[in-house]
Amino acid sequence: MGLREDMLTLAREASQGARLMATKSSEEKNSFLAAMADALDAHKDKIYAANKIDMAAGREQGLSPALLDRLELTEKRVQGMIQGIREVIALPDPVGEGLGEHGLENGLRIQKRRVPIGVIGIIYESRPNVTADAAALCLKTSNAVILRGGKEALHSNGAIYEILKKAGEAAGMPGGALQFVKTIDREAVRELVQLEDYLHLIIPRGGEGLIRAITAMSRVPVIKHSKGLCHTYVDKDADLAMALNICLNAKVQRPGVCNAMETLLIHQDVAEDFLPKVSESLRDKKVELRGDAAACSLDSSLILATDEDWDTEYLDLILSIRIVKSLEDAIDHIDRYGSNHSDAIISQDRKAQDAFINQVDSAAVYVNASTRFTDGGQFGMGAEIGISTDKLHARGPMGLKELTTYKYVVLGEGQIRE
Amino acid sequence: MGLREDMLTLAREASQGARLMATKSSEEKNSFLAAMADALDAHKDKIYAANKIDMAAGREQGLSPALLDRLELTEKRVQGMIQGIREVIALPDPVGEGLGEHGLENGLRIQKRRVPIGVIGIIYESRPNVTADAAALCLKTSNAVILRGGKEALHSNGAIYEILKKAGEAAGMPGGALQFVKTIDREAVRELVQLEDYLHLIIPRGGEGLIRAITAMSRVPVIKHSKGLCHTYVDKDADLAMALNICLNAKVQRPGVCNAMETLLIHQDVAEDFLPKVSESLRDKKVELRGDAAACSLDSSLILATDEDWDTEYLDLILSIRIVKSLEDAIDHIDRYGSNHSDAIISQDRKAQDAFINQVDSAAVYVNASTRFTDGGQFGMGAEIGISTDKLHARGPMGLKELTTYKYVVLGEGQIRE
Repeated sequence: MGLREDMLTLAREASQGARLMATKSSEEKNSFLAAMADALDAHKDKIYAANKIDMAAGREQGLSPALLDRLELTEKRVQGMIQGIREVIALPDPVGEGLGEHGLENGLRIQKRRVPIGVIGIIYESRPNVTADAAALCLKTSNAVILRGGKEALHSNGAIYEILKKAGEAAGMPGGALQFVKTIDREAVRELVQLEDYLHLIIPRGGEGLIRAITAMSRVPVIKHSKGLCHTYVDKDADLAMALNICLNAKVQRPGVCNAMETLLIHQDVAEDFLPKVSESLRDKKVELRGDAAACSLDSSLILATDEDWDTEYLDLILSIRIVKSLEDAIDHIDRYGSNHSDAIISQDRKAQDAFINQVDSAAVYVNASTRFTDGGQFGMGAEIGISTDKLHARGPMGLKELTTYKYVVLGEGQIRE
Repeated sequence: MGLREDMLTLAREASQGARLMATKSSEEKNSFLAAMADALDAHKDKIYAANKIDMAAGREQGLSPALLDRLELTEKRVQGMIQGIREVIALPDPVGEGLGEHGLENGLRIQKRRVPIGVIGIIYESRPNVTADAAALCLKTSNAVILRGGKEALHSNGAIYEILKKAGEAAGMPGGALQFVKTIDREAVRELVQLEDYLHLIIPRGGEGLIRAITAMSRVPVIKHSKGLCHTYVDKDADLAMALNICLNAKVQRPGVCNAMETLLIHQDVAEDFLPKVSESLRDKKVELRGDAAACSLDSSLILATDEDWDTEYLDLILSIRIVKSLEDAIDHIDRYGSNHSDAIISQDRKAQDAFINQVDSAAVYVNASTRFTDGGQFGMGAEIGISTDKLHARGPMGLKELTTYKYVVLGEGQIRE
């Protein structure tokens, strides 16, 4: 069989699986997940063995230390996967929730009810723990899931998948509900994302190249989890002591994550006062500072930024700094370079706050706080499958509710339209 | 300038318009819309004159009477457009609505707030009234809108657009918020739907060909408004008198609309009793009946259906009828041929009802009622931009709320992540 037929078969099975998953109770779904967690615990040796193959191949291929680190499954990480599944079990099941009901004069009742999305494709890169995390979130919400991991992690992902599938099915999970693309052929992804009659959502988790390519070729709706190019804007009416504290936190508390600050925008009226202070504090924390011409002229320790800097998610102890003439200029900058993730204004002026809130088109807009709070736990969702930088269906952290949709259930006793 | 640059300019202007629209109050937006309604009323002559050009060209090109009818702007239809805008003004503005709020222990407040989507592209076919209807719904929700109508209606759409834009801008509407693609070159659509950095949603309203083509080439998220291939399934435990009444209503009350029944599925245990009755009643109403072999053997007046029949939205006094062995077979049939729009089960059996509700993957699932109720008015939305047959973001009738999304607004007093 060719790749196209393989993907079609897999998608059809997933579609059947989704239909059956929609009939399972929360208790049944939790029992599938509990069996999966237990099985991962019981078969850790298989996971380590598979991971060793991937690690050896990765070293041979000269993967970077950072990539090798992401690939490695330590005792702690495997425990983390198991714990992750148990946390998903403990979360309330959103499926079936009533989202509103009204009656017509003829007695017809129209209910809006939360239901699973159907078949979700998760296309991810190097971290093998996504295999278990994504499966647990999708299955908890009665979806079928098709997993497609990175080629570097093929053996690790495959081992985790086999354990999950076997344990789930032994506990009564419908056969098609959990699927895994076993080939590393990249054309498999192209085939998969064409199958709009069977798949209902693609979530790509990875670099910009992966996401752009999938968006371009997919006929299935995609929710993008793009980079986090987060800005903090220090307004002319900012409390500068507060601003200093927030900027330090947003940049250095954990620089490698998507909600860390990458660019600092400072209103020209406070730049002379604020820039030297923030620059000194950040340099103390080993942050490399790159500024526009105006910033460099105020602080000669800054490196002159290039246009590329404004577009770069450093994920590192590097910060770009721009002096802006106005709030509008700050919003323009964010509009042009931002990634619709998380952006903050530091200001005591209510009007400036409101303009920023309304005009900055990001999933999370902050007033007088660090952007570092954007995540599923802080936002009250428990676990998240990622952070959507798209605008439809789900924005910001995507938890269980965001993996559902709704349908109208219309209950009658013979009503007809007059 | 080339087509690509034209579309890019238009999209950029719309994007600027969207940012400004997000700052407008409900009163301001209603005043733009009121000015538009008044202007349409004052300049009806321009609309009729433009429509005459389209009608003459249409006749010359040999458009079918049905297409010419859709194209024509009668006094009543123009009044309908004006009335439509006034109804949208009267609807509550969903933008800014609080969708939940929680606080963290550190005092941070995390609000989920309803916001506009941004820039919406509406790609539609022959009816020129969509120009006004779609503009009103999108602008009421603080979105910018790019309209692209059918080439047959170019002059009519253009005239309506010019009146709306001039009146809106005179009332303070941001210049970029209402846009119209003036070329009939089909490549313009291809260029437009590539502009993922400026457009946030494409809604195609038209035939299957248009929708498939746009889904295939778009990088911008699409919400499909596909056909309504609606089924009624008469279960073995149906109240057959009720079933008869519902089937008649669903087929003949208004056969040309998307929520009318196209296929009737009858459980074999009641077919011998029910088929002759429903067949006689439908024939009395001039409905042409096409059946599978089993149905034809029970009622020799039926024409033998082909595979194509199960896939056809007749929008006419034609019905296909299939005898099924079980509820599961009925669900399988709907799964295979349905369009995820509206489907009904007629049954007194609670278990059968629940299985149908959970497993039939349609925007609206009916129990013991006619599918004819699926529309924005009946569902409590007031006005609708269409009926989504997609699963993400909006399902079923799309009213004002469905033209919005949300963002998180995080309000602090200097909070940082520990």
